[in-house]
Amino acid sequence: MNDASYDDDLLAAAHAEPGEVGLVEPRDFVCTTPFTFDNGHAIPGFTLRYETYGRLNAARDNAVLVCHALSGDHHCAGIHSLNDKKPGWWNNLIGPNKAVDTNKFFVLCCNVIGGCQGSTGPSSPDPRTGRPYGVTFPAVTIRDMVRTQKLWLDSLGVQSLYAVIGGSMGGMQVLQWSLEYPAFVKRALAMATTAREGAQAIAFNEVGRQAILQDPEWNHGIYPKNGGPRVGLAIARMMAHITYLSDASMDRKFGRKAVRPRPAPPSPSSPPISGLSSQLSAPSDSMEGIDAVTPVASFDVRFEVESYLRYQGQSFINRFDANSYLYITRALDQFDLAATHGSLEAAFAQVEAATLVVGFTSDWLFPPDQNRDIALSLLRAGKRVSYAELSTDLGHDSFLLESPQLYDLVRGFLT
Amino acid sequence: MNDASYDDDLLAAAHAEPGEVGLVEPRDFVCTTPFTFDNGHAIPGFTLRYETYGRLNAARDNAVLVCHALSGDHHCAGIHSLNDKKPGWWNNLIGPNKAVDTNKFFVLCCNVIGGCQGSTGPSSPDPRTGRPYGVTFPAVTIRDMVRTQKLWLDSLGVQSLYAVIGGSMGGMQVLQWSLEYPAFVKRALAMATTAREGAQAIAFNEVGRQAILQDPEWNHGIYPKNGGPRVGLAIARMMAHITYLSDASMDRKFGRKAVRPRPAPPSPSSPPISGLSSQLSAPSDSMEGIDAVTPVASFDVRFEVESYLRYQGQSFINRFDANSYLYITRALDQFDLAATHGSLEAAFAQVEAATLVVGFTSDWLFPPDQNRDIALSLLRAGKRVSYAELSTDLGHDSFLLESPQLYDLVRGFLT
Repeated sequence: MNDASYDDDLLAAAHAEPGEVGLVEPRDFVCTTPFTFDNGHAIPGFTLRYETYGRLNAARDNAVLVCHALSGDHHCAGIHSLNDKKPGWWNNLIGPNKAVDTNKFFVLCCNVIGGCQGSTGPSSPDPRTGRPYGVTFPAVTIRDMVRTQKLWLDSLGVQSLYAVIGGSMGGMQVLQWSLEYPAFVKRALAMATTAREGAQAIAFNEVGRQAILQDPEWNHGIYPKNGGPRVGLAIARMMAHITYLSDASMDRKFGRKAVRPRPAPPSPSSPPISGLSSQLSAPSDSMEGIDAVTPVASFDVRFEVESYLRYQGQSFINRFDANSYLYITRALDQFDLAATHGSLEAAFAQVEAATLVVGFTSDWLFPPDQNRDIALSLLRAGKRVSYAELSTDLGHDSFLLESPQLYDLVRGFLT
Repeated sequence: MNDASYDDDLLAAAHAEPGEVGLVEPRDFVCTTPFTFDNGHAIPGFTLRYETYGRLNAARDNAVLVCHALSGDHHCAGIHSLNDKKPGWWNNLIGPNKAVDTNKFFVLCCNVIGGCQGSTGPSSPDPRTGRPYGVTFPAVTIRDMVRTQKLWLDSLGVQSLYAVIGGSMGGMQVLQWSLEYPAFVKRALAMATTAREGAQAIAFNEVGRQAILQDPEWNHGIYPKNGGPRVGLAIARMMAHITYLSDASMDRKFGRKAVRPRPAPPSPSSPPISGLSSQLSAPSDSMEGIDAVTPVASFDVRFEVESYLRYQGQSFINRFDANSYLYITRALDQFDLAATHGSLEAAFAQVEAATLVVGFTSDWLFPPDQNRDIALSLLRAGKRVSYAELSTDLGHDSFLLESPQLYDLVRGFLT
């Protein structure tokens, strides 16, 4: 069952820098039996794309599941080729002798159901029609993500989770895991997360969805691969990206610095969206109705922060599906453990895992008090829980960034 | 010269509720000589639409100029008809015996140059072509706004300002007034403002501009009145509106409340943008490629906060011009007194006005420390200045909302 991971180890070990996971290869879990979503609708089967690092021990009790956030995927550590300059999104945390030590743990991560990085989602073909599901894909919940992950772990012979770890939407999955499969989860580590979003977070997601839905290229969710509402998706991403940072970190990184040219992002699969750079240059003299010698106002980039955001938007549309963005932001907004269970204490009543919740002082998307609330509710429910609040000025993304403080916390919690 | 205001008084007095400005009528200042903008480009002339309340006294020393914010206009107090249910945007502050007492002061407010509520801006016809200026309108700065206002006040025979008052972009104009015309301005009251935006505020404005510029209906700024990038403008407004509120106020007002139907906003001049409500309903069974019986995901409103934001976006596009939004947000982003003058202290070196700066604790768009910096710099420059920080949880919009604390401060400062 987990010979796959042995092969990975050999391959990786042959090429890895010391202390690095090294070369990894994604694999697919293909479930050929129907899966029924929380909303009652079913699909005939599904695929989850995943990666693993380290190896499952003989006792099968050293598995650590990593859950990704909205725009993340299964590739959380290692590299995909020797030329790969960008390792997985949590490579700083995961690897030999790192905080999540792949010498000790069998680390797994999959792309969520509803996603677009190899797992089944709205952009996948509906086997019943041969066409992409689009908006006929059932609404996805955090619980659907977790239930499909359980089927996948079962298929790998994983019989318990030493720990489940995640930040942001990954943290929501961590909470859902520990209450859905209490006996299966030994440790739960949720960071920069919430048991339910506040109105402001919902509002930002809604504006992002509107940008996509109102883009004529969305076309009720029916669009070709690498086409669709690229402009709307870029706008959504640019706005969301601001909410992942902090005022202080943006001021330190960009301030009011004037623009310098930025290289075009890699575009392996599709051309830049029409105009995200070109349209915004000063309009050319061929414009109808404007005299060629009339001066015109330019709305091209002036500030470095503008250039950075445009780059973020452009990069995102080359790797993310707009319908997945709609589905997954809805899953985030609808997640509400207190409403689903009557109260947070009731939600956590069956939890057996030892839990660590980590909030970040500068996170204004899922602020510290929402993280603290989770810990307090677990305490009130009589559970083993610790809460740590890390002082950082890097905003919501703090959980992804280099932080010896965070590494020490994670290492300690996994001991 | 100011007979106009006498007429206004008579008209208003006949219909006003006690303590209310009552009926008011906008007027136009038409400047028929060319005006040269900060960027060196000129227009043949311009109009500023304005309103006045109270009357200029014989000594001509009781004028109080009110400066509006990004989405505001000249109509800051009173009503336009007896059926008018929505008074001017600062009606709570301005009126007989109110904090800005129209029994004592001659209060004036005009729509800024570059705006779209009657003053000359990108949507105005260029007299040289008969077509709207569009992007051939010169780039506008806060200083351009102030310099055109000075020409208007001169035309009215106003020889000094007892006070100039404004919040947000209005506060920027207040600062610019007091350093541009030091002898003219006796008191300067700037609220919820900044001497230069931080990277986050620029970033939000940039995403709003991108939403407009990327809307195919923008068409390089050439579009019919009531047409144009209505979708992009609505997206920009929805996002910006979030930044005017606070997490706490949104949670109190909306929390996670499920949606109730909201009446359509008044649409005096144009139909709703295609789809802002209709397109977002569950896609109909006539959709190509989707079986009529296949369930489809709906991205229609679920939460009250979503409905509220859509309403805000829809209302805005019925009253605001997209090109004006581009121009004015650029004016906001480019405003940087320290960069223009070497330092804030240098910028304020000539100021003669007594200044009051008011910050609001929950304002995360132009946060308290940016307001405090203005006051500290004035102090360092040896000027008369006070700083007040009001505890509110209503966000940036706090300066517009009912606040006896603020009224007392304003009343005291104007005594």
